[in-house]
Amino acid sequence: MVEAVETMDGWYSLHDMRIIDWQAWKRATNEERSHALKEFEQLLTSWEKVEKDEKGSQVLYKTIGHKADIMFMILRPTMDELLDIEQKINKSAIGEYLIPVHSYFSVIELSKYRPEKDGIDTETLPETQTRLKPILPKWEYISFYPMSRKREGDNNWYTLEKGERGKLLYEHSLTGRKYAGKVKQFISGSIGFDRFEWGVTLFAHDVLQLKKIVYEMRFDEATSRFGEFDDFYIGAHLPINQLASLFNIDS
Amino acid sequence: MVEAVETMDGWYSLHDMRIIDWQAWKRATNEERSHALKEFEQLLTSWEKVEKDEKGSQVLYKTIGHKADIMFMILRPTMDELLDIEQKINKSAIGEYLIPVHSYFSVIELSKYRPEKDGIDTETLPETQTRLKPILPKWEYISFYPMSRKREGDNNWYTLEKGERGKLLYEHSLTGRKYAGKVKQFISGSIGFDRFEWGVTLFAHDVLQLKKIVYEMRFDEATSRFGEFDDFYIGAHLPINQLASLFNIDS
Amino acid sequence: MVEAVETMDGWYSLHDMRIIDWQAWKRATNEERSHALKEFEQLLTSWEKVEKDEKGSQVLYKTIGHKADIMFMILRPTMDELLDIEQKINKSAIGEYLIPVHSYFSVIELSKYRPEKDGIDTETLPETQTRLKPILPKWEYISFYPMSRKREGDNNWYTLEKGERGKLLYEHSLTGRKYAGKVKQFISGSIGFDRFEWGVTLFAHDVLQLKKIVYEMRFDEATSRFGEFDDFYIGAHLPINQLASLFNIDS
Amino acid sequence: MVEAVETMDGWYSLHDMRIIDWQAWKRATNEERSHALKEFEQLLTSWEKVEKDEKGSQVLYKTIGHKADIMFMILRPTMDELLDIEQKINKSAIGEYLIPVHSYFSVIELSKYRPEKDGIDTETLPETQTRLKPILPKWEYISFYPMSRKREGDNNWYTLEKGERGKLLYEHSLTGRKYAGKVKQFISGSIGFDRFEWGVTLFAHDVLQLKKIVYEMRFDEATSRFGEFDDFYIGAHLPINQLASLFNIDS
Amino acid sequence: MVEAVETMDGWYSLHDMRIIDWQAWKRATNEERSHALKEFEQLLTSWEKVEKDEKGSQVLYKTIGHKADIMFMILRPTMDELLDIEQKINKSAIGEYLIPVHSYFSVIELSKYRPEKDGIDTETLPETQTRLKPILPKWEYISFYPMSRKREGDNNWYTLEKGERGKLLYEHSLTGRKYAGKVKQFISGSIGFDRFEWGVTLFAHDVLQLKKIVYEMRFDEATSRFGEFDDFYIGAHLPINQLASLFNIDS
Repeated sequence: MVEAVETMDGWYSLHDMRIIDWQAWKRATNEERSHALKEFEQLLTSWEKVEKDEKGSQVLYKTIGHKADIMFMILRPTMDELLDIEQKINKSAIGEYLIPVHSYFSVIELSKYRPEKDGIDTETLPETQTRLKPILPKWEYISFYPMSRKREGDNNWYTLEKGERGKLLYEHSLTGRKYAGKVKQFISGSIGFDRFEWGVTLFAHDVLQLKKIVYEMRFDEATSRFGEFDDFYIGAHLPINQLASLFNIDS
Repeated sequence: MVEAVETMDGWYSLHDMRIIDWQAWKRATNEERSHALKEFEQLLTSWEKVEKDEKGSQVLYKTIGHKADIMFMILRPTMDELLDIEQKINKSAIGEYLIPVHSYFSVIELSKYRPEKDGIDTETLPETQTRLKPILPKWEYISFYPMSRKREGDNNWYTLEKGERGKLLYEHSLTGRKYAGKVKQFISGSIGFDRFEWGVTLFAHDVLQLKKIVYEMRFDEATSRFGEFDDFYIGAHLPINQLASLFNIDS
Repeated sequence: MVEAVETMDGWYSLHDMRIIDWQAWKRATNEERSHALKEFEQLLTSWEKVEKDEKGSQVLYKTIGHKADIMFMILRPTMDELLDIEQKINKSAIGEYLIPVHSYFSVIELSKYRPEKDGIDTETLPETQTRLKPILPKWEYISFYPMSRKREGDNNWYTLEKGERGKLLYEHSLTGRKYAGKVKQFISGSIGFDRFEWGVTLFAHDVLQLKKIVYEMRFDEATSRFGEFDDFYIGAHLPINQLASLFNIDS
Repeated sequence: MVEAVETMDGWYSLHDMRIIDWQAWKRATNEERSHALKEFEQLLTSWEKVEKDEKGSQVLYKTIGHKADIMFMILRPTMDELLDIEQKINKSAIGEYLIPVHSYFSVIELSKYRPEKDGIDTETLPETQTRLKPILPKWEYISFYPMSRKREGDNNWYTLEKGERGKLLYEHSLTGRKYAGKVKQFISGSIGFDRFEWGVTLFAHDVLQLKKIVYEMRFDEATSRFGEFDDFYIGAHLPINQLASLFNIDS
Repeated sequence: MVEAVETMDGWYSLHDMRIIDWQAWKRATNEERSHALKEFEQLLTSWEKVEKDEKGSQVLYKTIGHKADIMFMILRPTMDELLDIEQKINKSAIGEYLIPVHSYFSVIELSKYRPEKDGIDTETLPETQTRLKPILPKWEYISFYPMSRKREGDNNWYTLEKGERGKLLYEHSLTGRKYAGKVKQFISGSIGFDRFEWGVTLFAHDVLQLKKIVYEMRFDEATSRFGEFDDFYIGAHLPINQLASLFNIDS
């Protein structure tokens, strides 16, 4: 029988994609709009405190194209906190204009292909803990996509021996390392949580690097033979102080 | 010809997923909201009596993400009772704010790979009857997903010999047993009833265990070669006394 | 070249699935509701006369789950009559509350694998004519699903020799015969008419038999290697005298 | 390298499927309805003149099932004329009640497998020109479906030698010829124009022949190994003088 | 390990497809309509200046069929400018009547299969720069479609050697060259940016050439074995001075 690899799991993650209902937003009164915006800024500001206390992290991006207008990525120690946040957005005044169109639920995950380092359990290392409970970068651009490993004919990841899987993932990681400083990558596990097996979130200062890394990785055997992808969500960073401008409709 | 395995079948099951129409809920008056909530609590309370009388069982969970906001899982001795319940929800006042978005119809099922135990027909054993007509746990977390067995090229579950299928399912069950006390699993059959062949409902105290068990099982041959999955619905328990809080919109 | 098998074709069939728009139904006045219901009952009653005159047949079922609330299955000698019926429902008062969500158009079909019986053309036999123009049973439960035969690699039904196809279908029919008295099956052809190649409609007194027969048939080679399925629609019989109760919203 | 076959191309074709919004139609006033209907009849009548002048052709059919209520098939010498027609329908009064739900854009196409006949370029023959710019029959029934040729493993139409493709298509055409007088077939090319590679439009006096021809053709190697299909749209002829009856809602 | 090929990347590209909401447009007042149209013309005119300054390029086409009514293709040096443009359209008055239904985000891309020409880095050549930052032609017709290279069994583009890939693409380009003067082609990369791997945009004076080139290319091994396609969007050029006519509803 093929051996599974243990995972180390950190904060729970919710990617929450929404479309702005511009028609309704225009029909709202000035008062309704400014109230909704102010309340929204307060909500986002309250989250900043959570991040400062290292009890979670989050980012907000403007996404391009018809699939969504904005995407939240929110990390918290429990799923219950994520449920609370989702409801809080829905119940808020701005929630009436932010139609949920997609989402992804997962948990920050590291594989224990090497369970020990210098005789110490990898999971207990401070650097591991930091990677499992990360403060998300506020870099200029984001790309999010879910992925699975194929189970088709000769291309079945789950019938490969553990050593072979480890080797392919190691080679794959070498491609990633080439982009150190240019692309920051977060892997979250979603087997049993959502439709695909993992979520991949990439941050970059230059949006082109998001294409370059995914393109180059496509030639890694781990991807060329076993990778399966769904829609990609690409966005530009949306800091709180740009909210008023995004939602401003006085031209 | 390949031999089918007899099944033992218990209570009928309806998974009923709904989105809360927050826009409409906000537009309702305070009276409409409190009436709808009260009537909903009464409905749920009346079901508790059914469970006490062991004439059915049910749970209600808050599900994460855009796919659904709440999920009912309801077990009853007949399909007609499930139809009645579905209509009762739709006709109720709260029904106007609970848009049906997904569902799954199945029946609690056990396979008779070992039709006898100590010379006694397995189906007549009290423990079998309890498993076929289970009182669902009210554990903190739930995961529901439908699954089928592949019929593709060399990976055709339905052309495997009965003995081979039994062996693979036995190995598969060993993985499940490792999670005793952590994960409670209910299998319901839906061949001829719904789009996939089975529904799998998992309950856990720790939501992470729902990922760990599905991840580990993916390496079992029964899954790696033959498993086919659809969307996963993940939720946190929603007891009656938390309904008011979920539906409260006064911030 | 592979030889096709002639078919014998009877009445045209329309499966018409609809969702009840409960919100709109609740907003209607008492007068609108009782008028719509009365008119609907008259329409259904007028169809009963058609069935008595053996100029068609039909049934109405309450379907479980979010996919549909009710399903009509209507048989008529011509497609034009089915088009008329569809429009009549849409134009009627109740039509405003019955949103069309799915349908299937086909024609009752028998295969002429054995074109003669005792030297007589099978199609001219009275029992054949009765099977081609059947009065549908009003049994307690229904299951409808479309199916096709695969044309993939080694599993290509349409490159099998006629004798081989006949053998596989004969074996398949033996499984069906085990359910005589429990399940009544109607096959309707839809190649060139609708998305799949056939429609299968099953009636049962015990809904469990609908699962048991489809489950057992899945191991027949005709299905395990060649069967392709879409959604299943399951329902409980809805006689005219239960319409008032289904549409009643005074709790 | 595999050689492509030249095509001869005639009139551009738009299949335009629409649902009748009965709710809105009922809410309209008598005046609005009779105005919309009259204007629609005038539009259709103006097209008849185009057909008389042999500058295009068109038909209108009532389609069965939930997918669409009516289907236009319109042929014109240029795509621009089809765009104009589409906009004219949308801008017209009846357009408010005819929701576009599907369409197919293609061009009447003949393959030049035999580029010459008696030393003359096939394309210049009058009979070829008539087939490329056809006046569509107003037969009782229509079936439209798009199709592609597979490019999967050993079943790759586009890696077959030209001679082999020609042979398979010739055999395929023999099946078609059996239905001379019963079924009239129009092939329109859509590679680079729409989702599938060809559109097939069949006309028949007896709707059953539409099933029989598609069924029999499924056993031709060109189809059994290489054919790929999408939804089928089936309808009954809707002449202008039946429009009033179709849209009449006074029962 | 298989070697990836470096890409050269130019302007970012957004294809933005929209449906015209004719119902809402008709309900608007004359003032609202003429204001919306005027503002839209001003927006498009301001883009013309950007193009004149060679700081971007764009085109607008009327697309045929139900999938969309108009398609923008917009090129800009940064993704942020594309996001701004998308929001500007949505916030504008005409935006209320232009429902976003599809989009594609990519970047103009050239492959560096031959990194040098006469000892000079290809990317630095003026002709390369012109191809990476192109002024889009305003030819009569457009076709846009996304494509990927297959990763299935023996047909896996990403496990082919670089030399083999280069050879197949070179052969493929020869087919393209046959259409010089008839079809102008722009390739934009979208691995990591959108659902497919590349977007292909073709311009032609004669719409038929858009079918002919895609048809002929289907027989190239790069396509027959490895090409994967999605929907095609076909349109006729919509210059600013035809906007009034398109949106005019006085018949």
